[in-house]
Amino acid sequence: MDRSFLIPTVPKERFPARRRIEGLQRALAAGGFEAALLAHPRSVFYYTGTALPANLWVPAAGPPVVFTRRVHALTAGAVAGGLETVPAPGFAELRRALDARGLAPRAGQRMATELEVMPAALAARLRQAFPGVEVGDVSPLVLRQRAVKDPEEVEAIERAARVWEAGHEAVMRTLRPGLAEHELAAAIEWAFRVQGGLGRVWFRRWDAALPGGGQVAGGPRAWVVSGHAMTVTGVGLSAALPWGASRAPLEKGDLVVVDYGVCVDGYHADIARTYCVGRPSPRQRDLWSRLLDVHRGVVAELRPGASAREIYRRAARLAEQTGLERHFMGVEPDRGTYIGHGIGLELDEWPLLAEGGEGLLEPGMVVTIEPKFMVPGVGSVMIEDDFLVTSEGCRRLSRVSDELFWVE
Amino acid sequence: MDRSFLIPTVPKERFPARRRIEGLQRALAAGGFEAALLAHPRSVFYYTGTALPANLWVPAAGPPVVFTRRVHALTAGAVAGGLETVPAPGFAELRRALDARGLAPRAGQRMATELEVMPAALAARLRQAFPGVEVGDVSPLVLRQRAVKDPEEVEAIERAARVWEAGHEAVMRTLRPGLAEHELAAAIEWAFRVQGGLGRVWFRRWDAALPGGGQVAGGPRAWVVSGHAMTVTGVGLSAALPWGASRAPLEKGDLVVVDYGVCVDGYHADIARTYCVGRPSPRQRDLWSRLLDVHRGVVAELRPGASAREIYRRAARLAEQTGLERHFMGVEPDRGTYIGHGIGLELDEWPLLAEGGEGLLEPGMVVTIEPKFMVPGVGSVMIEDDFLVTSEGCRRLSRVSDELFWVE
Repeated sequence: MDRSFLIPTVPKERFPARRRIEGLQRALAAGGFEAALLAHPRSVFYYTGTALPANLWVPAAGPPVVFTRRVHALTAGAVAGGLETVPAPGFAELRRALDARGLAPRAGQRMATELEVMPAALAARLRQAFPGVEVGDVSPLVLRQRAVKDPEEVEAIERAARVWEAGHEAVMRTLRPGLAEHELAAAIEWAFRVQGGLGRVWFRRWDAALPGGGQVAGGPRAWVVSGHAMTVTGVGLSAALPWGASRAPLEKGDLVVVDYGVCVDGYHADIARTYCVGRPSPRQRDLWSRLLDVHRGVVAELRPGASAREIYRRAARLAEQTGLERHFMGVEPDRGTYIGHGIGLELDEWPLLAEGGEGLLEPGMVVTIEPKFMVPGVGSVMIEDDFLVTSEGCRRLSRVSDELFWVE
Repeated sequence: MDRSFLIPTVPKERFPARRRIEGLQRALAAGGFEAALLAHPRSVFYYTGTALPANLWVPAAGPPVVFTRRVHALTAGAVAGGLETVPAPGFAELRRALDARGLAPRAGQRMATELEVMPAALAARLRQAFPGVEVGDVSPLVLRQRAVKDPEEVEAIERAARVWEAGHEAVMRTLRPGLAEHELAAAIEWAFRVQGGLGRVWFRRWDAALPGGGQVAGGPRAWVVSGHAMTVTGVGLSAALPWGASRAPLEKGDLVVVDYGVCVDGYHADIARTYCVGRPSPRQRDLWSRLLDVHRGVVAELRPGASAREIYRRAARLAEQTGLERHFMGVEPDRGTYIGHGIGLELDEWPLLAEGGEGLLEPGMVVTIEPKFMVPGVGSVMIEDDFLVTSEGCRRLSRVSDELFWVE
């Protein structure tokens, strides 16, 4: 009984598998690699249109092969671009299949795989299957290619940003004095899921984990910097995951930062807003107004040719002009030197808009801008929006209004 | 301003950090390793009581050191067991700090790290910091130790199993003809989150991803085998994650498998039940009754000394006795040869109860038993419960009744 019709697939005729693979082939040839082996389900999806279990073999020249690892008929049926598929659960079978076709790289040649994300033990098994072949990292080539989005990818990010709006509405409907942070998180995550959120977000970092895909941090918990690679983090429910929403009740006068990623059709939006429990005080309104000065000032810089590092530096200068530079992007001594990052198939993609960032913006890149001020004793404010770099400047993909929201 | 009091910590005086580290030290000495570097947040939590960013250095003999990677004061303050803490964001700083103490392994000696889960590029950076030192895999030693739970760990798994019951109640309250699978998923995940679920589950496999921590699969979608290392999988919302709950409506007469992990205080329960939309037919009741024969028969085998492989074989024999062996653990040609697995800080721990499993059960192990029959055209039934191996036999940690539930 054929059940493959039940499995969601991309529009296989229109999916740009061949074009993307050709792009990677040019990069492989330029990098001196004979071939690449892609195994991360996010990359496999990008090049084949399915996240079903497969390894993708891409020679620098010649036709690629999708090696299905499990549920072979289903996986083969879901692959786009008319790519050849061959069952091969592990690297040994894959090697034999390449040998049978005369396609395996020879000792002394170079191949590439996803060393940045593939577990070391698995990479060692790959090296065993290709003795004498030098194995380099294909990750920079893949991330470079993925940084510039196709129109279909931008549409998926926009759909995710639409789903985020349901989370915002859930906050406006649910937030009230006495509600616990994790209850607000539950309402947001429920809204995302009902609207088609995939129920998880993808981080490239192996050690990052966002509870429910984001965080709710109110009052004093919003000026604690915890966890990995984040600034407004919250304190979490447990020592086993000490960031994200906590059990603490939100109280009248609290500023509450809601910062969530949501993944729809494989693509992430990453948006944040700040909500006040009760009418904001003049001090809170003033904080928000200065935050918007930074946000709008940075957004005005987003255009092709702008430098990733200079965009961060512009943000830092704008923060200085507000007089709140000591509270910008963290709490001393834990302040970050970044202002945003690329989003796409993962929540943390290229480019990185930071002091340590590299390169220039290009049309088709999608980046977040996420300034925050964290003022112990007063509160934290954060806004994050998602932008497509266009030929002229940028277009905002997130449509939630940029006001400081409040509920009675 | 000290904000560390806001961060959740384990009861630091009672947490068995020292005892666990001593157990690892014995295993390191027996394995001929001079030291181990632990970096996976799940392991770091197991040995230090916090998942804040840190690398844990454990020499085979001598005192361990926690190298804090970020937010140093907060991380140091959360570490249990009175372990020494030293700031060291990366491996180069860590190496220098070890050298300053005369603790670094020398060229020709052996050290161990978590090669099974650590990205290859990070492992390469570790090797660069210790030139000439052979780096082996500490994962088997850690998993072996973690397979036998402390009483506090069993209590956490029981708390997670209690939280699962709220998900079950959500199903009974929400399921009705016409409800979409992902709407049911949203209701379950909301119930978990409100009760203190951490909003994500941890898989050891780098390529596994469960939408929302589990799956809802009804009607024909419950006899599709998709994805990685699962059997009843559902078909999902997207080609980017083609398993888990879909948008399809659940219809009168459908059998609906609900299989979810939920993580509370760092520990997972992994439980499944089957629900019928409308009163079950005699055929459906008969399927369930045969499934329970297998389930109860396998559970009767759980005791110290039982072989992981023999437990699976016993399940396969019981399935044969029901006459449904062709439908056991999958759909031809995609059938699995396993019946359960350990759970704890990750959803897929040792022991593996499978044809390829190894070793014997010991008191303190916590395992799931998860038989399923998948009968195309009729429906799929699955039950999964969590068991603590005791000195005499086993104790069920999941308390949901083992009936075939149904709603009008």
